[in-house]
Amino acid sequence: MAEYNVLLKLGVITATLSQFHLPRNQFSLITELDSIFIQETDHREVTMSSHEEQRAKQRLEEYINQRTNLIAEERAERFDAQVIASATEKEKRAAEIVSALRAKEAKEIWSASPEKLMYPGMEFLIARETILNTKLFAVVKKLPKGAILHGHMDAMCDAKFLYQNALKYPQMHVRVNSLITSDSSLPLPQFKPLTADLCTQFLNAPGLTSENYTPDSWVPLQKARNEFEYGPEEFDKWIVGTMMINPKEAYVDYNTSVKIWEKFGSTFRVAGGMIRYEPIMKEYMRQVLLSSIEDGISYVELRINFFYKLAIREDGSETLEHRDYLTMLGEVIKEVKHQLKAEGREDEFVGAKVIYTTLRFVTNEELIWYLEDCMALKKEFPDLIAGFDLVAQEDTNNPLIYYIESLLWFQQETKNRGLDIPFIFHAGETLDDGGAADSNLYDALLLGTKRIGHGFSLAKHPVLMKMCKERGVAIEVCPISNEILRLTSSMPMHPLPVLLNNGVSVALCPDDPSVFGNMGLSFDFFQVIVASEITSILSLKQLARQSLEYSSLDAKDKEKAIELWEKRWNAYIEDIITSVAP
Amino acid sequence: MAEYNVLLKLGVITATLSQFHLPRNQFSLITELDSIFIQETDHREVTMSSHEEQRAKQRLEEYINQRTNLIAEERAERFDAQVIASATEKEKRAAEIVSALRAKEAKEIWSASPEKLMYPGMEFLIARETILNTKLFAVVKKLPKGAILHGHMDAMCDAKFLYQNALKYPQMHVRVNSLITSDSSLPLPQFKPLTADLCTQFLNAPGLTSENYTPDSWVPLQKARNEFEYGPEEFDKWIVGTMMINPKEAYVDYNTSVKIWEKFGSTFRVAGGMIRYEPIMKEYMRQVLLSSIEDGISYVELRINFFYKLAIREDGSETLEHRDYLTMLGEVIKEVKHQLKAEGREDEFVGAKVIYTTLRFVTNEELIWYLEDCMALKKEFPDLIAGFDLVAQEDTNNPLIYYIESLLWFQQETKNRGLDIPFIFHAGETLDDGGAADSNLYDALLLGTKRIGHGFSLAKHPVLMKMCKERGVAIEVCPISNEILRLTSSMPMHPLPVLLNNGVSVALCPDDPSVFGNMGLSFDFFQVIVASEITSILSLKQLARQSLEYSSLDAKDKEKAIELWEKRWNAYIEDIITSVAP
Repeated sequence: MAEYNVLLKLGVITATLSQFHLPRNQFSLITELDSIFIQETDHREVTMSSHEEQRAKQRLEEYINQRTNLIAEERAERFDAQVIASATEKEKRAAEIVSALRAKEAKEIWSASPEKLMYPGMEFLIARETILNTKLFAVVKKLPKGAILHGHMDAMCDAKFLYQNALKYPQMHVRVNSLITSDSSLPLPQFKPLTADLCTQFLNAPGLTSENYTPDSWVPLQKARNEFEYGPEEFDKWIVGTMMINPKEAYVDYNTSVKIWEKFGSTFRVAGGMIRYEPIMKEYMRQVLLSSIEDGISYVELRINFFYKLAIREDGSETLEHRDYLTMLGEVIKEVKHQLKAEGREDEFVGAKVIYTTLRFVTNEELIWYLEDCMALKKEFPDLIAGFDLVAQEDTNNPLIYYIESLLWFQQETKNRGLDIPFIFHAGETLDDGGAADSNLYDALLLGTKRIGHGFSLAKHPVLMKMCKERGVAIEVCPISNEILRLTSSMPMHPLPVLLNNGVSVALCPDDPSVFGNMGLSFDFFQVIVASEITSILSLKQLARQSLEYSSLDAKDKEKAIELWEKRWNAYIEDIITSVAP
Repeated sequence: MAEYNVLLKLGVITATLSQFHLPRNQFSLITELDSIFIQETDHREVTMSSHEEQRAKQRLEEYINQRTNLIAEERAERFDAQVIASATEKEKRAAEIVSALRAKEAKEIWSASPEKLMYPGMEFLIARETILNTKLFAVVKKLPKGAILHGHMDAMCDAKFLYQNALKYPQMHVRVNSLITSDSSLPLPQFKPLTADLCTQFLNAPGLTSENYTPDSWVPLQKARNEFEYGPEEFDKWIVGTMMINPKEAYVDYNTSVKIWEKFGSTFRVAGGMIRYEPIMKEYMRQVLLSSIEDGISYVELRINFFYKLAIREDGSETLEHRDYLTMLGEVIKEVKHQLKAEGREDEFVGAKVIYTTLRFVTNEELIWYLEDCMALKKEFPDLIAGFDLVAQEDTNNPLIYYIESLLWFQQETKNRGLDIPFIFHAGETLDDGGAADSNLYDALLLGTKRIGHGFSLAKHPVLMKMCKERGVAIEVCPISNEILRLTSSMPMHPLPVLLNNGVSVALCPDDPSVFGNMGLSFDFFQVIVASEITSILSLKQLARQSLEYSSLDAKDKEKAIELWEKRWNAYIEDIITSVAP
């Protein structure tokens, strides 16, 4: 009987033939088995009349047709169907080159050392260095990625950048709440810039590792560093480590979605003490924009946490108001645009906006304060405020329904005041099935959320996915965040393909890159393309485009942004064709 | 402003109120934050006219109605909608009792030690002992579970049972392929019953740990055990350990879906040498049925691996044919029924059938031999052979499309010969996305598979899920197998809810319980109910019922089986109501 290469002759399935790989395990297994039971390698030939052969061939052709049609029917529902259908010859060629590169590196890099547990899409914190050494990452790095639609400002710059900045200011102080001994693990540091008076008071404070240190008392940061018993380098490592999650924390010590939030939450407490200082905040905002632009991102929607009502002004006074944040951001955007223009790169950046967030453990009464605050800011900065959201771990805090009266009031009140502040809710960032956290998806959608932050559990909800499509609600999927926060153990286990195959619109987002080390969007795009046979750079094209389409840019700016992005995309395709060898 | 207890007064959302838990993290987090930024706990009261208040109340009522309707709409598509809609008062009461018990144990058992990484639905091999100590497990244990539709005969009895049986036969010999030294890990043992002549030849062979041992030479099992340098208990531990996967292997050493198959495959090579001995095989078959019955299972479809053409007869000769297996199974079924009848328990067991399987790395020519063999067996044992399947790891072996000509030929040939042998294919037991293994789902369905074994990646295929519903194809979902073979890291990450919420029919199955330690179906049912807020014992009822509905029993037997099962279900509900206190 003929082998399956008759399929080749039929010429109908060439496109998928690369899938028919030969069995790898066959021989080793048989050999070992045969050492026990030695038996003839019996086989049977089928004899057919030429008429029967003709019929068999016909049946095979029919089958292959059915198969091709079924796959086509399914692919037609995918989010990237349109972009694939309308792909140019050059785009198809570039997609083939990149897919071949992925296949090559799957073998040569990800399967290179059989004793190591490595594979494409594996745990990011372990894979990071390997990823940086792949050619595929270099290709993804150059991709024009559109927008970051989900990033928390407090966790968007490299932790080292933030810390280096803090070191510049003599006002910056640090403290810990226990004595540091050689047999205890290092405690969590707290940072705060002090007023001139207080600076004088703590000028000669004993260092953190001094036996004279009084827990909870402030030490000038530089002094604490210089006098650190284990040396300034260990001090730097400690501080930066408290703002990031390392592999042991994610994959051993806190290896569940609920536990890892203990560590995750603490990174914000450390960084917050530095970021909420006027001059640092401004540099931080600038760096968010500049580093995003370097990664091929042309627009950013920052979720800023307005939970603290006041932050610290340059002189150390606690008088920096929420409106000051926005004034500052407005200035930074202008300055960055100016700088880019001077470099002839003005097409690389279209702007930034803010999603107002507070924490989902405030009371309803407190929430009203924040909603009023948000409306006031929207009135003063109509171009900057893009929406409202509640953040913090969904599993352990209040569900949206807890705030339903306040949120309905807000909807009515914004209408009365003529303000357009859509909800852009976090929802379904959970492994919960049918409980309160999972049910946030119902409320987010019924409250008319513009997009859904995370929507990790949305894959379980066929009716809600349909609603998302009908209402034009895109999902801000954060692959690396989900993995490190232990909603999924790896990219191949991530439910993203469910959303994509159902035709739900998705924008990839980094969430909290300073904590995870996934600065920009390149790492998230990489994890998505490397872990799927069906995802090509045409799929990435659609993901990038959707990030602009579902952004809060107004119609005219959006059109312009997409036009600029398309120009860059075309240049990108040219670049792949001419310079990437798989 | 009123708290959300107005929702209570409205009386429309009482059913879901248990979800609105209070924030756990709130106070600790705020306290720590406030130690840096001390600020007033400002809040704002909303003042409303009575007219505005009336309107707000109306809007809230409307919202709650919408929400109730949306959730109802979604639940109506779930697999258990019908069983919930038609639940009796007693069933509802029992379901409440069991859900309350689950909630209680979630708190008191699964969250009891905050330093441990424990949670409901966590890694089975770590959780097993804890599970056995829950009341919920005792409740699940008593559930009448219907059928096992997916279990590989070679891995269905407790490994200790198999080994204890092997020890009874002086014909049973063991060997290893290297010298055992104190600094090497123990090699894989191989077992084989020998003929009388060979038994004499190896009667005085040096033990496995003797320095005179020649690798690959046989030693009588009892002798090997008695002379084992580290003592017979260590010998027992070693042998049983080679037939099971332990937590370190699953979660550390081989912690990926591809790697774990190395260990998984080796367990079959060890056990196979014992099971393929006529007297042991018969006892093994009997034990499969008896232990299933003890777990509330009334019907079993065994996947038997017919890859080896001959096994070993009682006298040690390699002459035991495939038809002998089936004759033996027929006898065992009869004997078990007889035994049950004698105990007045005949209603607890309706029978067993066989799904013929060979391995998905044979050549097409070899496959024809197996297909012919399968047809010959069906002709001789029409009531026993229920279908045909190909097994072994999908990721690394031939996809179904590789065998398409042979499989189409088989379909035609069974039709010509008047034989009804449906395919019951393994498909989609993979993390692959759009590659060959994932694509087995297309071929399984187009080839008219009666059910799908595993279908782990089916959740990603909306069109194929629809096809399953239209064509009445149930999915044999193996939760614990999927977790230990690293397709999912825990039950909360398992895509089962996607299938259930889409209304796809599912039967829970243990796959290879001797390797995983999930004997029967209780552990799989437990992991499913404990990991989901939306899954009640009414959901389990539907899962159990479906296992019979989608079985290969003929219409009359099926009707009888379901009738018997329903009787047991009703008694089960009575038992819960009267004896389970949450």
